[in-house]
Amino acid sequence: MSVTTPRGFRSAGIAVGLKSTGKPDLALVVNDGPAPASAAVFTSNRAQANPILWSRKAQQAGPARAVILNSGGANCFTGDFGYETTRLTAEAVASELGEPDPERVLVCSTGLIGTGDQAFRDKILGGVPRLAAALAADDTTAPAAILTTDSVEKTAVRAGDGWSIGAMAKGAGMLAPGLATMLVVITTDALLDGEALDRALRAASATSFDRLDSDGCMSTNDQVTLLASGASGIAPEEHVFAAALSEVCDELAAKLQADAEGAAHDIDIEVRGAASEAEAVEVGRSVARNNLFKAAIFGNDPNWGRVLAAIGTTEAAFDPYQVDVSFNGVRLCHAGAPDRPVEECDLTPRRTHVLIELFAGEAEATVRTNDLTHDYVHENSAYSS
Amino acid sequence: MSVTTPRGFRSAGIAVGLKSTGKPDLALVVNDGPAPASAAVFTSNRAQANPILWSRKAQQAGPARAVILNSGGANCFTGDFGYETTRLTAEAVASELGEPDPERVLVCSTGLIGTGDQAFRDKILGGVPRLAAALAADDTTAPAAILTTDSVEKTAVRAGDGWSIGAMAKGAGMLAPGLATMLVVITTDALLDGEALDRALRAASATSFDRLDSDGCMSTNDQVTLLASGASGIAPEEHVFAAALSEVCDELAAKLQADAEGAAHDIDIEVRGAASEAEAVEVGRSVARNNLFKAAIFGNDPNWGRVLAAIGTTEAAFDPYQVDVSFNGVRLCHAGAPDRPVEECDLTPRRTHVLIELFAGEAEATVRTNDLTHDYVHENSAYSS
Repeated sequence: MSVTTPRGFRSAGIAVGLKSTGKPDLALVVNDGPAPASAAVFTSNRAQANPILWSRKAQQAGPARAVILNSGGANCFTGDFGYETTRLTAEAVASELGEPDPERVLVCSTGLIGTGDQAFRDKILGGVPRLAAALAADDTTAPAAILTTDSVEKTAVRAGDGWSIGAMAKGAGMLAPGLATMLVVITTDALLDGEALDRALRAASATSFDRLDSDGCMSTNDQVTLLASGASGIAPEEHVFAAALSEVCDELAAKLQADAEGAAHDIDIEVRGAASEAEAVEVGRSVARNNLFKAAIFGNDPNWGRVLAAIGTTEAAFDPYQVDVSFNGVRLCHAGAPDRPVEECDLTPRRTHVLIELFAGEAEATVRTNDLTHDYVHENSAYSS
Repeated sequence: MSVTTPRGFRSAGIAVGLKSTGKPDLALVVNDGPAPASAAVFTSNRAQANPILWSRKAQQAGPARAVILNSGGANCFTGDFGYETTRLTAEAVASELGEPDPERVLVCSTGLIGTGDQAFRDKILGGVPRLAAALAADDTTAPAAILTTDSVEKTAVRAGDGWSIGAMAKGAGMLAPGLATMLVVITTDALLDGEALDRALRAASATSFDRLDSDGCMSTNDQVTLLASGASGIAPEEHVFAAALSEVCDELAAKLQADAEGAAHDIDIEVRGAASEAEAVEVGRSVARNNLFKAAIFGNDPNWGRVLAAIGTTEAAFDPYQVDVSFNGVRLCHAGAPDRPVEECDLTPRRTHVLIELFAGEAEATVRTNDLTHDYVHENSAYSS
């Protein structure tokens, strides 16, 4: 179970032929209340898919009643026709649910940019009645229907005191901040209003999804939706809920990192001693995006010089000749000069920890990334679904 | 001939054992005047190698009399010992040339960061007398001695009216702006003062080397040095010299692009209709740095969606639904929607042209990059010399 772990939710996932493989490609999550509330965060890419344009507007119209998600096509840069497809999709779902306002239905899409033609529309609209008929409070089929190149379903749950949180996510490439490329639906039966949900979701995203930078590429379709049903009748303290939500988001971010396309190492870049948290993130991100660093990790080469070269491109406060850099617990660079022999460092485990100590302040942050591998190049030079 | 094409220069290249292959790894270019002048631009990376720290200071001391360049070790993050090596190297060259001021000798190094130990120092200092003895006005050995993973020597010459320009360059990876990772020495026998040289060099670099972004990684060791001897006795008009210098820098930038590590495509990203030249460069660079775009080109996939997704991450003025994108002359995206079928586009040639029309103004710029290939990953995961 995932999004149906909290009470007050039903979900379903079916195949409508968007994926050439015939695998499930259409999912629906419905919030049955009794006290529906919602919040959502969207990609910060200025090029935004039609579902983002729709959902961003719809989210203002009132608490979302449902989220429909398709894989097998991004419906991005598909013109007015594509936007109309999104609107018709929301209308179809609203009609099935007896909901008079289609703007209470959010839409998410993922897949190839430019995909969103008549066949795409027909398959989705034709599938909605069957999707609605499959809705169940004990559903386990939704998480698979939102996957693209993902190799595993990604779900997370947390239990509170009489309430719970459930979540599903997809994302395996184009993972970069301002949300990584991901679709996430999080549900809870806690009793919270939209403003509290919004605060908690923004805070949790900022330190989880926004610090996942697998390949530096920001998607046009990212959306994280949080739905609350209130079905538990319990209103947790906001900070308690926020902490649980952060745990869920962090777990999902780690699962997205672990399933990144073609990756052979999951790299946590921990930056300590920064002048501010923002600078810690900037430094971590500059290393996470450095192809030479990422290729070196693939080759099990603890190339600290490339780390320093990457830090040098930032505006963060630091003295290049005061920096320490450690790989998997071995300090290879001290005060900007070689320290322990690189032979002492073992990079063969998949999990890789890079610690950068700037000695410029007290702030810290960890950015998650992956290495640059042959498989990444292969998968992304051949990607077409 | 390259740097010795203009009168008033001698050069040499020898092997001193810095490279494990035994290939030439130490080069010297000497300006014999009679009216020496010089200018230099350096990496904008805040992490700077010892030769950069030295040369930046030395360039203020007066016209450079010589430039010594080594491959086989970057002498970066090698501490005070490394800086002392650079200073001793300049002193040794000055002594050989009978030049009382060692700050009239610039130093450049390239190779692995962290390399610059006692053996490195001994090999260089031990080689300087032999290097000086090899100096010749008809030398052709210097260009090979500055190469690292380069597969070919890179030189360029231009003839003016009674004067000329000659140049040599190295660079094959870590090629990104704020100079690509490169060492360049340009000579001329035109009669020009240091200020004129500086203006011409900054202008020429800004539209050539600074728009080469092979892999988004900025080096710690970049240096472009321009030496004028005045030996022709001819003082060209500044704009005439500047135009010739720009041609030389542009030719070298193209040669660096064509020799980028592991690349299978040389991609020119031309941005038109930008609100400003800076925004045109920003848009071109964002596409040039997008790994998904670069991997797609490797796979001969004209994935215009990834171009738009990359543009969307910039701050440049544009409407995502007004943009046109063409690959090799075929307009695949018009007004943010699919246009010609992708099958019409042939990406098998190595030279690749991507045209982005923003319709936001009149400014334009071209950024040069390469694709992301298996060979790039291989070479940079195994790089150790």
